[in-house]
Amino acid sequence: MQTGSNSPCQGKLFAVGIGPGNALDRTVRAEKVIRSSDVVVGYHRYIEHINDLITHQEIIASGMARERHRCASAIDAALAGRTVSLVSSGDAGIYGMAGLALEMIRENDLHLDIEIVPGVSAAQAGAAALGAPLMLDYACVSLSDLLISWDEIDNRLKALAMADMVTVLYNPRSKKRTRQLQRAREIFLEFRPAQTLVGIVRNASLNNQNIIATSLTHMPLDKIDMRSLVIIGNSRTINIGQWMVTTRGYFDAII
Amino acid sequence: MQTGSNSPCQGKLFAVGIGPGNALDRTVRAEKVIRSSDVVVGYHRYIEHINDLITHQEIIASGMARERHRCASAIDAALAGRTVSLVSSGDAGIYGMAGLALEMIRENDLHLDIEIVPGVSAAQAGAAALGAPLMLDYACVSLSDLLISWDEIDNRLKALAMADMVTVLYNPRSKKRTRQLQRAREIFLEFRPAQTLVGIVRNASLNNQNIIATSLTHMPLDKIDMRSLVIIGNSRTINIGQWMVTTRGYFDAII
Repeated sequence: MQTGSNSPCQGKLFAVGIGPGNALDRTVRAEKVIRSSDVVVGYHRYIEHINDLITHQEIIASGMARERHRCASAIDAALAGRTVSLVSSGDAGIYGMAGLALEMIRENDLHLDIEIVPGVSAAQAGAAALGAPLMLDYACVSLSDLLISWDEIDNRLKALAMADMVTVLYNPRSKKRTRQLQRAREIFLEFRPAQTLVGIVRNASLNNQNIIATSLTHMPLDKIDMRSLVIIGNSRTINIGQWMVTTRGYFDAII
Repeated sequence: MQTGSNSPCQGKLFAVGIGPGNALDRTVRAEKVIRSSDVVVGYHRYIEHINDLITHQEIIASGMARERHRCASAIDAALAGRTVSLVSSGDAGIYGMAGLALEMIRENDLHLDIEIVPGVSAAQAGAAALGAPLMLDYACVSLSDLLISWDEIDNRLKALAMADMVTVLYNPRSKKRTRQLQRAREIFLEFRPAQTLVGIVRNASLNNQNIIATSLTHMPLDKIDMRSLVIIGNSRTINIGQWMVTTRGYFDAII
């Protein structure tokens, strides 16, 4: 990557959230920005999700865990005067590439025209498939302890479990990381009833979307992977027919 | 509202999130569903935001605090065989109408074809305008204690402040409700340093969008209203140029 000084004729870097995967859940802004970019950079599976928007753009696709490399390529192209879309699934600002791009700009003391384009997150797509579990206050926690210490994550889970917050678990379980989800369940079982509702959505919004409506005790841990999202309800979360809903108390209060 | 039995020839109810207000931040699905509906129901300000999608649809618009009435109208129209969009700003499932619709369906023992259409939330639009403050784990809390007791909200704020969670405050302050935001700030000041970064976004995504980058001690409470969103950073939240970013530690970890 170029560092220190900037090219006199800069391009622009867009950090674009392309939503959960289904083309219908993309925003108009995301489509417009990607269509008008010179270069599109992203994880190869996400590039497949926006294939219908690719006409003339140069594509820089790479594999998983190559985030820094992708980000550097995107920044370099923008510094060279091109309009660049650095795509993330879901929202670019929620476990996406927006933060890394800004951290990298700081690290290399760059000045670059950058814009963040938000998108429907995995949590939102999963919640919509399950019903309305996020109607009241909620929190998102990633169980990935690659960059963050497990102690920090553990403390957050305890606080959320105690505070009766609806909690969305991102990156719940991979082939190598299986202990984290077990521990998360243990923590919630310490502070919440065993029958607390849990919704699991795999491949939210896609044709092969799969939903499991279950509870803290009955969660099928082995069916949960990195394409799954887990939503743990709170004391106000109930089933209404097929739906998982966190009730706001409209019918308790006199209004 | 009709109760108990259902019409043999039912329509469909869509609970649609129209995003933060700007047409560019709507999803393709939301636009498609609204365009193909027979009836569109919503708060009159939100109906204005989707005026460009209205051609033939019957509009049922009403004022603030008429949520139950709007919801009943939407359900009635769907039970009468029509395709209905019940619109919320942001995401229909985050402080939106999806939950109320499902609660009302349960209350009246109805069976109705219903679909939730997610959208970019106010928190996401606000975060994108500020930079990338939601990059790590975060929580959303509404400071409105009309339906929920203040004790419950107070406990959640304490837990989040202690757990060093980035926290988004919805409905922070109205003309009548001013004490809640003061108290929220007090709670965070108990557990977090005074210089903790705070971002305030008013009218996120709209032409009159306004941003205030400040800190816990310097928050201008009197400039915050119901069209504002407050994002309180955590110990990893820093300024990078004009941006507010919660760093994930990419440059601390050896990866």
